Amino acid sequence: MTDGSSDSLFVPSLRHDPARGRLVGSVRLRVRYAESDRMGIVYNAHYLTWFEIGRTELLRSAGKPYRAVEEAGLLLPLVEAALRLRAPVRYDDLIQVETWVETLRSRSIVFAYRIVHDRALIAEGTTTHACVRAADNRATTFPERLREALLGLTC
Amino acid sequence: MTDGSSDSLFVPSLRHDPARGRLVGSVRLRVRYAESDRMGIVYNAHYLTWFEIGRTELLRSAGKPYRAVEEAGLLLPLVEAALRLRAPVRYDDLIQVETWVETLRSRSIVFAYRIVHDRALIAEGTTTHACVRAADNRATTFPERLREALLGLTC
Amino acid sequence: MTDGSSDSLFVPSLRHDPARGRLVGSVRLRVRYAESDRMGIVYNAHYLTWFEIGRTELLRSAGKPYRAVEEAGLLLPLVEAALRLRAPVRYDDLIQVETWVETLRSRSIVFAYRIVHDRALIAEGTTTHACVRAADNRATTFPERLREALLGLTC
Amino acid sequence: MTDGSSDSLFVPSLRHDPARGRLVGSVRLRVRYAESDRMGIVYNAHYLTWFEIGRTELLRSAGKPYRAVEEAGLLLPLVEAALRLRAPVRYDDLIQVETWVETLRSRSIVFAYRIVHDRALIAEGTTTHACVRAADNRATTFPERLREALLGLTC
Repeated sequence: MTDGSSDSLFVPSLRHDPARGRLVGSVRLRVRYAESDRMGIVYNAHYLTWFEIGRTELLRSAGKPYRAVEEAGLLLPLVEAALRLRAPVRYDDLIQVETWVETLRSRSIVFAYRIVHDRALIAEGTTTHACVRAADNRATTFPERLREALLGLTC
Repeated sequence: MTDGSSDSLFVPSLRHDPARGRLVGSVRLRVRYAESDRMGIVYNAHYLTWFEIGRTELLRSAGKPYRAVEEAGLLLPLVEAALRLRAPVRYDDLIQVETWVETLRSRSIVFAYRIVHDRALIAEGTTTHACVRAADNRATTFPERLREALLGLTC
Repeated sequence: MTDGSSDSLFVPSLRHDPARGRLVGSVRLRVRYAESDRMGIVYNAHYLTWFEIGRTELLRSAGKPYRAVEEAGLLLPLVEAALRLRAPVRYDDLIQVETWVETLRSRSIVFAYRIVHDRALIAEGTTTHACVRAADNRATTFPERLREALLGLTC
Repeated sequence: MTDGSSDSLFVPSLRHDPARGRLVGSVRLRVRYAESDRMGIVYNAHYLTWFEIGRTELLRSAGKPYRAVEEAGLLLPLVEAALRLRAPVRYDDLIQVETWVETLRSRSIVFAYRIVHDRALIAEGTTTHACVRAADNRATTFPERLREALLGLTC
């Protein structure tokens, strides 16, 4: 079914991907009319917003909701992004955003993404985020507990 | 729970509201980081996008997905909107958009909306849409079956 | 000319409108591809963003750039909006946003807007903003100098 | 001055960059409130929208406005993007988007971008676009005249 009536459709989930050696978070979204453009397909910038939703749900699954991370005084601003679009999606399509930690460094993290529609790969990409202290806006190392939670996603 | 783990959380639903004499559609959304602004709250324009999501799910519940309406050659462009913001919402808040048909005329329709967060009314508004034939971009009356489906929401 | 080559095209300006008894700010914008939707016209939520640009330039013309207002500890969050769309605009159209102060109260302000394309009225609306102290997020009266600057726009 | 009062501020321009052997288009934008996020800086996805504005003005300078390209039956959908953010920008900042043709192939084109604020490099990136016939949505070679106009930008 692709009509949104299935009960578990919009529930974010987490599964182990043996090939990648990663925990992969999954969240389903329905494409908004606001996200379409005059070609009738989704405007490119919105893929970065969907990546952000993937990160948000992956961090929540890891027990570290990003809102709580920020409230604890840490920011993870995006410093780099790469995006490849394989096929278009349209208003009302149900898509799935899969997100995992590609690389965890002491002061930065790379997330990777795949977006799937009807079992076809629609888009993929990566984003790199610095770890920054909100108080003085300077790069810092990940605090121990956050680091452990993120490490937990990479096995 | 407000953490998104409940199974039925993101499933759009439809219920009868005896006070309004209307079927009211409900859809839950999680506020995106992209929707926040430098005040730390949701930027005002996004409420109109959330209203659109409310319409989309209400029409789907009525058996007339808006995408199918457009594919059948009809457009329902917004011609008027009114919006009142009662309290701010923030990144990662789970909100509920309630939508119903306020008035059905021969060539236009008024939808009404309430947005709720933690049982508090956050925003409310209405949008008016013309019924337009895509072929020649002219106002037209609602086709019989669509009119019946919309009428079915008003009792 | 509508091709953007005229020198003064994108310069915000201020003129007196005797009929309204108001100073009216004008700013020209070119419609972005990102603002179009699958109907080929501008998606409705973007009109609220254009209104915001109109306010920003009107306040700058009044000698009170909104960024400086915020930096001085005051916020003007939108609490109400009304919008009427008269005719569609499309990607690459050059539009003009006209903004003026409709009503100045002690703790709130109403701005009014007209959007014009090729001398035709495209959209009009109003937005109401509360005057809020950032420190404690409470409604307050306009500080004297800001009030004078805003009053200066209404004659 | 950075307050928008200079006459020629928002006029797109084209200049030859001898180091790159390219014509580089320049367009100035003022950061919108809607583009800020809760960190107080511009949300990452908007950089892709600014790149689009850079392309739009570069193509116009080359005598081939993109809107006319589309009206002639050709689409240039984005298929790949890379983005590096060097420093944040904020609401009301005046930024400059510089755009040039990095690589012109028979069926695709790569544009490159630099975004500058107060003479500092804020962001840079590239986007790759396929050349697609709107009629059947298939990849095609650039039509002769468009190809010549684009080639004219690379010398």
